[in-house]
Amino acid sequence: MFRRLLTLEEAKLVIQKHFEAKPLGVEEIPLLEAFNRVLAEDVVAEIDIPPFNRSTVDGYAVKAEDTFGADENKPVKLKLCGMVCVGEKPKIRVEHGTAAEIMTGAPIPEGADAVVMLEDAERKNGEVYVYVAAARDGNIMKAGADIKKGEVVARKGQLLTAREIGAIAAVGRAKVKVYKVPKVAVLSTGAEVTEPGKPLAPAKIYDINAYSLSAAVQESGGKPVYLGVFPDEAAELEKALKTALASADMVVTSGGVSVGPKDVMPTTLSQLGKPGVVVCGIAIKPGKPTTVAVVDGKPIFALPGHPTSALLIFHLLVRPVIECMAGRMPTKYATVKALASTRMFPARGRKTFVTVKLKEESGKLVAEPVPMGLSGAITTLLRADGFIEIPENQQFVDEGEEVMVHLFKSEKACIKS
Amino acid sequence: MFRRLLTLEEAKLVIQKHFEAKPLGVEEIPLLEAFNRVLAEDVVAEIDIPPFNRSTVDGYAVKAEDTFGADENKPVKLKLCGMVCVGEKPKIRVEHGTAAEIMTGAPIPEGADAVVMLEDAERKNGEVYVYVAAARDGNIMKAGADIKKGEVVARKGQLLTAREIGAIAAVGRAKVKVYKVPKVAVLSTGAEVTEPGKPLAPAKIYDINAYSLSAAVQESGGKPVYLGVFPDEAAELEKALKTALASADMVVTSGGVSVGPKDVMPTTLSQLGKPGVVVCGIAIKPGKPTTVAVVDGKPIFALPGHPTSALLIFHLLVRPVIECMAGRMPTKYATVKALASTRMFPARGRKTFVTVKLKEESGKLVAEPVPMGLSGAITTLLRADGFIEIPENQQFVDEGEEVMVHLFKSEKACIKS
Repeated sequence: MFRRLLTLEEAKLVIQKHFEAKPLGVEEIPLLEAFNRVLAEDVVAEIDIPPFNRSTVDGYAVKAEDTFGADENKPVKLKLCGMVCVGEKPKIRVEHGTAAEIMTGAPIPEGADAVVMLEDAERKNGEVYVYVAAARDGNIMKAGADIKKGEVVARKGQLLTAREIGAIAAVGRAKVKVYKVPKVAVLSTGAEVTEPGKPLAPAKIYDINAYSLSAAVQESGGKPVYLGVFPDEAAELEKALKTALASADMVVTSGGVSVGPKDVMPTTLSQLGKPGVVVCGIAIKPGKPTTVAVVDGKPIFALPGHPTSALLIFHLLVRPVIECMAGRMPTKYATVKALASTRMFPARGRKTFVTVKLKEESGKLVAEPVPMGLSGAITTLLRADGFIEIPENQQFVDEGEEVMVHLFKSEKACIKS
Repeated sequence: MFRRLLTLEEAKLVIQKHFEAKPLGVEEIPLLEAFNRVLAEDVVAEIDIPPFNRSTVDGYAVKAEDTFGADENKPVKLKLCGMVCVGEKPKIRVEHGTAAEIMTGAPIPEGADAVVMLEDAERKNGEVYVYVAAARDGNIMKAGADIKKGEVVARKGQLLTAREIGAIAAVGRAKVKVYKVPKVAVLSTGAEVTEPGKPLAPAKIYDINAYSLSAAVQESGGKPVYLGVFPDEAAELEKALKTALASADMVVTSGGVSVGPKDVMPTTLSQLGKPGVVVCGIAIKPGKPTTVAVVDGKPIFALPGHPTSALLIFHLLVRPVIECMAGRMPTKYATVKALASTRMFPARGRKTFVTVKLKEESGKLVAEPVPMGLSGAITTLLRADGFIEIPENQQFVDEGEEVMVHLFKSEKACIKS
């Protein structure tokens, strides 16, 4: 029976129907190890910041009313009653007619309600001459002025950078709750595929995908579980996939999804458990044979074997799922506008992604297709800066037409010449 | 004796004179662990990729000349001589008048010099009818067509992403040489500063900087060595700095650099070793008391205690040094143009950095200063999106003037409303 292939959007909906991508759980970790993790709680200040009234200057803590009327010609004379250091609870009380020496950041002693700056006073024989009248609360930072007890300093869902980590430390927290990192099992299949580092027998090639996809898992906020290379044999593959499901929260494979006699992946996936294969082919180019299964609540993405296709489909389909499971916001890839260097056609009835290299030509940015055929497994991977998308119902992109290039890097790519 | 403060540019030159920031050394690690590391070697293909002539289609391997003249009405009849599978060395030889079944990716058997696509032939009773003439080398990917033996697939200095890691795997390498990650000791000073997680005694505040700076070290490609909080006591501080120097490749401290009686950092630094303090104050605001020493070939950056200042000076002065030591390219911060929400003045004679928050007002992007006073230690850290730079010789930035905002994030910041 002929079945129409799902569009990319339909495929995403079908996957969502069978697998809801959401954070896997929460763990409490030391704040010092929380860089680049995603906060799984609202961090609330349990204290005022600062916790006490502090002096914002070096000077003298006084009763403001004692200094009223003071000016350069008529200083007020106060008796020095002691000193307040940073980090020490004041042992003195400022009474009428007295002043205490105080350092920036030190707590305001009892009785005082203002600080006179060092340069607005003069000390002579145990006495302080104040030349400028102090305003009440002048040069004092009140308890809670920065953050009030009960305020939220960092919110659930925030990616922890230096700034948020600093704010969480400020309220005294040495541990934080973050979302667990999803574990993603990665394996390659193919009778001809050999693990790098091993000797290469005749007729064999080295594996690329388990390596590039493991790195892509890390880029997405997941932890790869590298399982290696397996032949296209149903029994071995089934064993490998069971190991993968047991050791990780999701599985990404590559190869073995075309229609050749040795492409046993879809059959094997359909026998693993319920609901089994939910997407069997997508109307896109490349990536048509992409197969997705859900088994025991865990998704398995079976990507094509061509390295650039595998990585492209990973970005389109797998990365957003890992990001959701990690509690992250989906990455928005940077885009640039460029002119098509040549006419490009979509594959019949399929949304087509053309990998392109960016070039500058007479001051204009030009997108030149990098063919993704079998002949350019690695060179395409290295040369392409991004891709353009041609909808299935568009006849072609014309030479010189402006196109939107989705860059592979999340930052603006440098233009390689 | 009055000494003019160094400008930021002069300070950088002085530091460079005493400490050449360069990669610390090279280590060989598994390629699977190399994500986000910096390659310290040119990776050269030691084999052709593919290593053998491969079929790019499913079909029949033939001698091209045997098919000359074949067309839909006049097929050429060849004897099926065997099958070539993917990953297996062909055991057969294609002689004149014969054809071998072949799979995509399988090696071309001896004697054959073209592959006829499955759909251009028909199989009947052990014979193959070829309906389309094959061109010599047709549907064959030659050995080395993707990468030639001796070609460089990844270069020294490249940051390893999924793409480069895939290419390195392709040439069979399971290990790569990368630059060592610089270890950066981080400590805070101050009699009032308490480590997060510990009870807060009266007159104390929690440490922010050792946490935020440790995260900033990670952002820069370094590995933080967190040493905690130390009081402003010369003996203890000296001991802590010696530990720091022994355990790391560079040291970042915060606090204790102003001119108060307890600001013992510069004195302590000057007694640690040669050449000692090389920068003592910089004509910038904030960050004027920033002190830099070099001891036994390792730099020590003593930053101010104010959390936002410390992080800002880290970005201006420390981050580029860590990046060099890690073998990385200096991060270029994204910038956006915005309109100044108010008139802003530089501090007299000092290049001034004003932390700003970005807002959208009637469709225009507006930069509003976030004051960096003692009163906003944490809120500034959280609220500021970036900073603007006002040169020391500029009178002011006028309200409504277009300014360049350097964003704290390396990607385009979302605009918080």
